[in-house]
Amino acid sequence: MYSAKIKVTLRKSILDPQGKAVEHSIQSLGFNNILDTRIGKYVELKIDTKSDEEARLVTDEVCRKLLANQVMEDYEFEVVSVNGN
Amino acid sequence: MYSAKIKVTLRKSILDPQGKAVEHSIQSLGFNNILDTRIGKYVELKIDTKSDEEARLVTDEVCRKLLANQVMEDYEFEVVSVNGN
Repeated sequence: MYSAKIKVTLRKSILDPQGKAVEHSIQSLGFNNILDTRIGKYVELKIDTKSDEEARLVTDEVCRKLLANQVMEDYEFEVVSVNGN
Repeated sequence: MYSAKIKVTLRKSILDPQGKAVEHSIQSLGFNNILDTRIGKYVELKIDTKSDEEARLVTDEVCRKLLANQVMEDYEFEVVSVNGN
């Protein structure tokens, strides 16, 4: 059993209005040293495969087919082995 | 200048209907070996402080005050030094 931790982020060239809104909220709390706030998605899932390599391939395919819109988003992930339970 | 990468996740005891919906979508694509899908938020921001320690303190405060609802969510972050530009 493997666990994948996936980050999906907007490409740098794409405007992030949600990030801007959060940044304004942070600044209105009095933090004046925060900038470039960008919001993405974080997905954790478990993959029941025999090998690390296979888990990585499955995760990459799930990202490409479903989790990330590759026109606007980038993704990165790490896969670690976990004990099944 | 420091960059913080923050993950905000639902606590394990909290049901995650969005994660379940994504899991069903993944399974309907033909992946039968995916389970325990959970969705969180991922936030990147830059912090203009002199020290690593101060950047960490600011990030933690922003998480507690704004980014995470500590009743339902956990957060973790890493802070790395970046060149200002």
